[in-house]
Amino acid sequence: MRILITGAAGMVGRKLIARLTHDGQLRGSQIKALDLHDIVPPQAPDMKGVEVMAHTGDLAEAGACEKLISARPDVIFHLAGVVSGEAEANFELGYRVNLNGTRALFDAVRLAGYAPRLVFTSSIAVFGAPFPEVIPDDFHLTPLTSYGSQKLVGEVLLADYTRRGVFDGIGIRLPTICVRPGRPNKAASGFFSGIIREPLAGQEAILPVPRSVVHTHASPRSAVNFLVHAAEIDGDKVGPRRNLTMPGVGVTVGEQIEALERIAGSKTVKLIREEPDETIWAIVKGWPTRFEARRARELGFKAETSFDEIIRAHIDDELGGKVAE
Amino acid sequence: MRILITGAAGMVGRKLIARLTHDGQLRGSQIKALDLHDIVPPQAPDMKGVEVMAHTGDLAEAGACEKLISARPDVIFHLAGVVSGEAEANFELGYRVNLNGTRALFDAVRLAGYAPRLVFTSSIAVFGAPFPEVIPDDFHLTPLTSYGSQKLVGEVLLADYTRRGVFDGIGIRLPTICVRPGRPNKAASGFFSGIIREPLAGQEAILPVPRSVVHTHASPRSAVNFLVHAAEIDGDKVGPRRNLTMPGVGVTVGEQIEALERIAGSKTVKLIREEPDETIWAIVKGWPTRFEARRARELGFKAETSFDEIIRAHIDDELGGKVAE
Repeated sequence: MRILITGAAGMVGRKLIARLTHDGQLRGSQIKALDLHDIVPPQAPDMKGVEVMAHTGDLAEAGACEKLISARPDVIFHLAGVVSGEAEANFELGYRVNLNGTRALFDAVRLAGYAPRLVFTSSIAVFGAPFPEVIPDDFHLTPLTSYGSQKLVGEVLLADYTRRGVFDGIGIRLPTICVRPGRPNKAASGFFSGIIREPLAGQEAILPVPRSVVHTHASPRSAVNFLVHAAEIDGDKVGPRRNLTMPGVGVTVGEQIEALERIAGSKTVKLIREEPDETIWAIVKGWPTRFEARRARELGFKAETSFDEIIRAHIDDELGGKVAE
Repeated sequence: MRILITGAAGMVGRKLIARLTHDGQLRGSQIKALDLHDIVPPQAPDMKGVEVMAHTGDLAEAGACEKLISARPDVIFHLAGVVSGEAEANFELGYRVNLNGTRALFDAVRLAGYAPRLVFTSSIAVFGAPFPEVIPDDFHLTPLTSYGSQKLVGEVLLADYTRRGVFDGIGIRLPTICVRPGRPNKAASGFFSGIIREPLAGQEAILPVPRSVVHTHASPRSAVNFLVHAAEIDGDKVGPRRNLTMPGVGVTVGEQIEALERIAGSKTVKLIREEPDETIWAIVKGWPTRFEARRARELGFKAETSFDEIIRAHIDDELGGKVAE
């Protein structure tokens, strides 16, 4: 079992590597080789008896993907991509990385002439407002960002290339990943993680939107579970519709805070300071709230069932099981 | 008013040129120049006082689109494309022409830095079975052919490039064009036109499917009307969802034949020979039947309202108003 991971230096990539290192196997086969690729040098784990190769470069550059595919990985996790804000700020960069890079990878597999499993991380950004209260699996695809458009093109190619037998592709539309580890960032969605992460670390967090805002979350641990399940699932059971909306926990911000209070107490929750920000709220209003994700659930993709679980996953995975006093 | 037409040598392209020659204006402005492009030399019409330029080449070739766009056409009709059967038979050609060619044209407009109206002919092939009896405008997009996938990528780019102000794009999803003039072809859909065109010319036609088959049609004249209306419509009224399913006449094959009998008599209809072909029927079973096309109708796109009208349009436009005795 040889595995290629693009975007291996990113948060989800690193967690996937840790999981594969722990499991030592995928699809019932022992992992013998791991190719890690990113635009910055990915950190290679120490895996006994596993050939780990770190590759650095731009997938859209001529020959880059051919080189990666020449080792004929059995499973490819294509996580690489420029994030939403960057794709919107820099038109050319977004299209180059998210569209050209993805297509170059897909075409390199096509020209190699074998049909590996390919798992592609898409996004709920393929959907565009206005939304129903719960978005069904067959909701139409009208992205309102360049990032969402680029991910949708990736999905369309993935489905067609799979139908043509180029590879056996599964696209997974990730919900918002929460609690995101690390430092606060300026993303409009940052507060969803911040209001949990910072108080748990004994620090103040700003809540810029009303507590009634509804949003769907899955933990980084669930994101990795989705990826591994997508690598192992029986493609025949998926059928021709290869892009699946992942499940998650749909909650109000108020319910997030109640869960935090149940787990860490009222003193922790007092570290959340409400400071309404009309600009952020205007952006958040255009975001989807809940997803049905029925097909993914039926196909065995599992997320947390409560926001309490999401917080506990963060405490276990990032805080060594402990909460700051 | 300078107009660029790609795919100008095709059936719809030629009819659009004839219409523009007749009208002499578009969007209320006199046509001063017409750039015609195709992979084979397009026929240049004789238009008094209009600079008509015929261009031949491959849009996907480096520099080809930049050259076409350098004259800064005010309206671009992007009709060029490899048809469904060819895109399925030749993977690389389909992606090269339908995806790379379209993207090269869009990017040439982007780099030219002005924002013309761009009309793109998409297709109902962006939809994939299983279908409801009537396909609503917001039906999800899951193409089951490479052609449909390539057209969908064009649609996604068109919407995003329009949102970013690169151009003011309108994508129109054409239903089956019927009655297609010319000689019978081997396309699985060929009989929809053949059972009308051949008998009207006094020749036998084969019907390979049951009379109960339902399909949606628009005349070549309507296709040209759609294009002209798409060029003239107020973009603000369209909003961010730039790809529109065009209206048409949804009828059973039996109703097509009844209309033919009303117009041309029972002797003509007797030239249709029923010769069931399981292979063709299997293909046709996977095709959509009826479309709601509510948005397009509300935006003023008009098709025929009965199949009788479609037959009369063919008799007027192709047979000089006369039917063979």
